[in-house]
Amino acid sequence: MNAQLDKTLDAVKCVGMESVVGASDLTFEHVLQARERIAPYVHNTPILTSSYLNDRIGAELFFKCENFQKAGAFKVRGACNAVFGLSDEDAKQGVATHSSGNHALSLSYAAGRRGIPCHVVMPRTAPQAKKDAVIGYGGLITECEPSTTSREAVFAEVQATTGAEFVHPYNDPRVIAGQATCSAEMLEAVDGLDSIVAPIGGGGMISGTCLTASNIAPNIEIFAAEPLQADDAARSFRSGHIIADDAPVTVADGLKVPLKENTWHFVSHFVADVMTASEDEIVEAMKLTWQRLKIVMEPSCAVPLAVILKNQDVFRGRRIGVIVTGGNVDLDRLPWMK
Amino acid sequence: MNAQLDKTLDAVKCVGMESVVGASDLTFEHVLQARERIAPYVHNTPILTSSYLNDRIGAELFFKCENFQKAGAFKVRGACNAVFGLSDEDAKQGVATHSSGNHALSLSYAAGRRGIPCHVVMPRTAPQAKKDAVIGYGGLITECEPSTTSREAVFAEVQATTGAEFVHPYNDPRVIAGQATCSAEMLEAVDGLDSIVAPIGGGGMISGTCLTASNIAPNIEIFAAEPLQADDAARSFRSGHIIADDAPVTVADGLKVPLKENTWHFVSHFVADVMTASEDEIVEAMKLTWQRLKIVMEPSCAVPLAVILKNQDVFRGRRIGVIVTGGNVDLDRLPWMK
Repeated sequence: MNAQLDKTLDAVKCVGMESVVGASDLTFEHVLQARERIAPYVHNTPILTSSYLNDRIGAELFFKCENFQKAGAFKVRGACNAVFGLSDEDAKQGVATHSSGNHALSLSYAAGRRGIPCHVVMPRTAPQAKKDAVIGYGGLITECEPSTTSREAVFAEVQATTGAEFVHPYNDPRVIAGQATCSAEMLEAVDGLDSIVAPIGGGGMISGTCLTASNIAPNIEIFAAEPLQADDAARSFRSGHIIADDAPVTVADGLKVPLKENTWHFVSHFVADVMTASEDEIVEAMKLTWQRLKIVMEPSCAVPLAVILKNQDVFRGRRIGVIVTGGNVDLDRLPWMK
Repeated sequence: MNAQLDKTLDAVKCVGMESVVGASDLTFEHVLQARERIAPYVHNTPILTSSYLNDRIGAELFFKCENFQKAGAFKVRGACNAVFGLSDEDAKQGVATHSSGNHALSLSYAAGRRGIPCHVVMPRTAPQAKKDAVIGYGGLITECEPSTTSREAVFAEVQATTGAEFVHPYNDPRVIAGQATCSAEMLEAVDGLDSIVAPIGGGGMISGTCLTASNIAPNIEIFAAEPLQADDAARSFRSGHIIADDAPVTVADGLKVPLKENTWHFVSHFVADVMTASEDEIVEAMKLTWQRLKIVMEPSCAVPLAVILKNQDVFRGRRIGVIVTGGNVDLDRLPWMK
């Protein structure tokens, strides 16, 4: 991300977030505001359990099913908070973003509900199902190469042309406050959680989870789950500074993007550990979830169960919230198909 | 089914069903008894909606998700009602059944919860995932050929050897009363339904649905949905008597079995229509459900949506309950895989 683009993260444009210029300014009050703001546009998603998985792991798992969320993923929470927080004046030129998929759907959905345009820069290699869905929600796609470098260059052009308000997929306090509503719902629905495990890509969901839990349930340990083949967050966590990889390759295609300063704030201050899983472990956990929970979810969502299965000594005996982040998968290209 | 086997449908062995010898003796009181009896062993499953599907069809669809049910299908309701309705004396020798899959899982689960043996005769061609699951629940499998004739012959042998109590997959008032608890839950959760659409194979779920609706919401029209390639129920409905096909071939493998007298009672008296869908229509509706509802369900469960999509003139403007009957599918053999 270049410095100019970062300046467009203009949090003061979100009504009720006038004093927020960075992640460290966020309070639980912002989460409550977000919850009220987005309530008409999102689901309070169900929480599923599996006695088979509980027995196998020796723990109690509560799966917060954001695959059932509007637009098929948790990202609609942050997108709606950003879009519906804009003043009428600021909303006029529409919104714009770059995304590996679900944020694009979500922002298109949110913009569509508000009746403003949404410009999306998307890797040409993104699953066709995701592109079709963006178009279905009225999003306007410009394609880029599947690398962070290309995406940012193409995006700068799109933004300069349209004058649209940039809503970053995760490095945006408005988005983080929106994602934080997910664990707020989970903590209301399930008592006595010991841990929450969520996937980590850019860190938006993990940051929102930290924002909520650190304020209202500070004893809960937050674990980030990451593909070993895109383990930049784990390496960042261990080294104490952001490490970014350009275009890593993993089946968990929602988790390829690097941390940024706003999400690094939460990862570095509030995360207990970043755990990794191999491609095979992710696919196995994905298939196991489909078989046992009977839900359609993305490979990215399987990384938490993969790390729990791999680190049973850490998780045994605990009550664990698991965030199933999205369900937008290409059914013709499931990772266990030959 | 030969006459001797039919005599083993000994409904008086189910406590509280002493006066029930056939389908026409069933009352809503039996449904309420079943509900109380099975409550500790089954889920009150969630109901999902899809604004995309509602918009596309011009109706309001409420999907009762029995794919999230214990043992992965609605059949656990009837199985538990039969197993937990047995006196201690009658339960001693265990239970036995023949099944194309889900009833086998369900009876194994129910018997396991009661701590009695469960003998299962299953076609050797049943999906391996279903066989594994039966074994996982402690069921004892004897294989037969994939035809009604072979299944009944092999079953007669097994029953003679073990002396186990026969619980037919559907032609049993105890089972029908158990299945009826599904629509009882749906009618509690959703007001003002105009129609309920459920798949029909042997007719257990449709019979239970008729039993509940005819007693507490008689204005609701019940539609049975059937594969065109196994349309014996549709032909029976039109001709006024049971027509049975031996070993029809359809992707909806839970719907191959014929009606029997107890289910024919409900189909002939209470069903508004039996509608059929082609194999392609079923697979398309299945994929659409996975994509839009983000749930894993069997091909059989897609037949209701397939007939709704095909008969939009009948269903437009209605509030429609759709019963998603089960989620036990072999993920390595999905019907849209090449």
